[in-house]
Amino acid sequence: MAKVIRVGLLGCGTVGGGVVRILDREARDIAVRVGGQLLVTRVGVRDLAKDRQLPLPADAFTDDLLSVVEADDVDVIVEVMGGRDPAGGLIRRALELGKPVVTANKELVAHEGPELYELAESSGVDLMYEAAVAGAIPIIRPLKQSLAGDRVRRVVGILNGTTNYILTKMTEEGASYDAVLSEAQRLGYAEADPTADVGGHDAASKTAILASLAFDSKVHADDVFREGIENVTATDISVADRLGYVIKLLGIASEVDDQVAVRVHPTFLPKAHPLAAVRESFNAIYVEADAAGELMFYGRGAGALPTGSAVVGDLIDAARNVQQTTRGPVESVHRGRSIRPIQELQTQYYVLLDVDDTAGVLAAVATTFGKNDVSIAQVWQEGQGDRAQLVLITHRALEGALRSCVRDLQGTEGVRNVASVMRVEAEVFS
Amino acid sequence: MAKVIRVGLLGCGTVGGGVVRILDREARDIAVRVGGQLLVTRVGVRDLAKDRQLPLPADAFTDDLLSVVEADDVDVIVEVMGGRDPAGGLIRRALELGKPVVTANKELVAHEGPELYELAESSGVDLMYEAAVAGAIPIIRPLKQSLAGDRVRRVVGILNGTTNYILTKMTEEGASYDAVLSEAQRLGYAEADPTADVGGHDAASKTAILASLAFDSKVHADDVFREGIENVTATDISVADRLGYVIKLLGIASEVDDQVAVRVHPTFLPKAHPLAAVRESFNAIYVEADAAGELMFYGRGAGALPTGSAVVGDLIDAARNVQQTTRGPVESVHRGRSIRPIQELQTQYYVLLDVDDTAGVLAAVATTFGKNDVSIAQVWQEGQGDRAQLVLITHRALEGALRSCVRDLQGTEGVRNVASVMRVEAEVFS
Repeated sequence: MAKVIRVGLLGCGTVGGGVVRILDREARDIAVRVGGQLLVTRVGVRDLAKDRQLPLPADAFTDDLLSVVEADDVDVIVEVMGGRDPAGGLIRRALELGKPVVTANKELVAHEGPELYELAESSGVDLMYEAAVAGAIPIIRPLKQSLAGDRVRRVVGILNGTTNYILTKMTEEGASYDAVLSEAQRLGYAEADPTADVGGHDAASKTAILASLAFDSKVHADDVFREGIENVTATDISVADRLGYVIKLLGIASEVDDQVAVRVHPTFLPKAHPLAAVRESFNAIYVEADAAGELMFYGRGAGALPTGSAVVGDLIDAARNVQQTTRGPVESVHRGRSIRPIQELQTQYYVLLDVDDTAGVLAAVATTFGKNDVSIAQVWQEGQGDRAQLVLITHRALEGALRSCVRDLQGTEGVRNVASVMRVEAEVFS
Repeated sequence: MAKVIRVGLLGCGTVGGGVVRILDREARDIAVRVGGQLLVTRVGVRDLAKDRQLPLPADAFTDDLLSVVEADDVDVIVEVMGGRDPAGGLIRRALELGKPVVTANKELVAHEGPELYELAESSGVDLMYEAAVAGAIPIIRPLKQSLAGDRVRRVVGILNGTTNYILTKMTEEGASYDAVLSEAQRLGYAEADPTADVGGHDAASKTAILASLAFDSKVHADDVFREGIENVTATDISVADRLGYVIKLLGIASEVDDQVAVRVHPTFLPKAHPLAAVRESFNAIYVEADAAGELMFYGRGAGALPTGSAVVGDLIDAARNVQQTTRGPVESVHRGRSIRPIQELQTQYYVLLDVDDTAGVLAAVATTFGKNDVSIAQVWQEGQGDRAQLVLITHRALEGALRSCVRDLQGTEGVRNVASVMRVEAEVFS
């Protein structure tokens, strides 16, 4: 087969450059797998003046992005520009034209994925987005194909490399959040404005995409309950350590009473859990399914080449399908499960209180917990002089009850401050 | 689409029963994904008299296995009977008839895989075998599709649950190999005749399949250098522990000078490596690729439902392809890399010697190592009275040189016995 499959590239930054380099380096093998040569014919960029040092003809570049999508000599679209606009409109146009799309655009898929899947389905073309979640880690294809006959019950992920790096350093070096963040920024592991990472927004987007796919339902980024790691202290980490836990920023999507519960927050995770061993900027996704049992997928969640590898894997599939005038499996988001309110979450909690070191404080605190129907599993007090800290781990309780308890604690005699509250996933194995 | 895809099942033991149960339980969802109903119309078994308690019509069963393959009312074959014969002939017949095949048959694929891939390719039908390696863990599809545009450099796997269970118990309880094996047999985790597992044969089969796929070459089970765990002692494990290692039975396939090096043996693995945390009967596969970097896939390597989940995932893909009169991607085993002889392996080694506790022994031992061009990285001596043990870790050396050194050590003055020799993969990250 001598056929050429012509690729239109939208965006040519770090990931786009990675894609072009992989396509060039592995051209011969890729042609065998596709059943035809992959040729990048058009590249849409914002800044035509930039010298990109890539093995592409100069006349392939244009700043008219729509012209790339609509060009007669483009069979497949690869979108690596990021952002919802104009990427969303361009992808919709490509799908309407019957051109398959491969995208690495996490933000777009997290916010508009289910609608885009439906458009791709009605247009009868592929929309692939393996690179949008956890870079090079194959997770979309396993969820969509390998587990197609199974029933997924829970997906738990370390989905953001920057926050996992910060928490790893805090854990292993006993350093403060601020000190580690500054160091990470200096080394280029964290952005100057780190909000998207440390605030959990990036992890929430990825969790939404995984939840949609795992539970065949429309889950959008805004449906995800979200807390960042900004308030995690060295004390929290050392308390967790003494109790047999590590603190990880987890994205957790699960099925509860035919609803989808979906949240991102710093979590006490037992040290024996496979996710607890995921260090530095690595990502990992842990999946529980009825028949398959426990699965974990681990690797690099970001970077030009890892993300490029995932894009090219998708592109080979999409191009092969074009060549064979067929298409891959489609997402099923028609189950229409609703999102479970966070108040109905049932889990364990860690509460750290600054208290007066006087008789009667523990009794007052215990009474407040009892009144709110939150049962205490473990408690200890530390400190001398007039300042002490009270560490409490609860049994499983309703999030709503715990929140009411925390409000009441702020007015409890002898409690100076509720220093930390964090969810404890001790039964994440169960 | 109301079309029915008719499935012929070869074998109906544990895994076959798991497949039938999953197909029954998830029938509605599976029909949506396939675009048609999956119906098991024929089941070939050895013993017709057995009551299998499965949701299948009694007249579906036959002991004429070939009739299942050749039946007009069978569109797809699922082979879960195991063994090379008659499964191999039946699968070849199905492929010749243009019927796609899904198999969980590790032994067959490990010995005849490359030839079967070629037959499937020339017949233009799917041959899928995700379930043949590491049960429910999706590893075939990621290697074949997700990493299709990447270049895999190394695959390292914990591929046998029984041996990983035994080594985990020996490590965590300090017990002897014999004691743990007996306990594992009592609990049903090890077979009465444990040779296939503890001798590394099972892991070697899986390693051959992964090596073929990762390096686009014909690698057969017999090409794999193999050592089992039968001689691993409690002393080896405690020495490894003190040096910062765990002992794991690893299947290692790598590309060296355009050859494929492929081996299974107990290995000193640094505790910080993600594979070191894989406990009990879990399996995991660690992959290094040029662009994707490091990846790991973790889960249940065996069992009726995990294996059934992988079979059904493949079956949905194969049935969808039948429905759309297309086929999935094919294996490329045409690169024709040769197998690297084990003598040319370069790695570090652990050597444990029983020696006389007398002056001059260390010098004699060191001289023997030096004469064989094996350089010593670490050494220490333990023991009192006239009996002592000498622990040595070498720098990277040629396997051939190390073997010659071990022969010479057996004749070295003061050396009573070469108690253990094991490969050390200290640079498995590199």
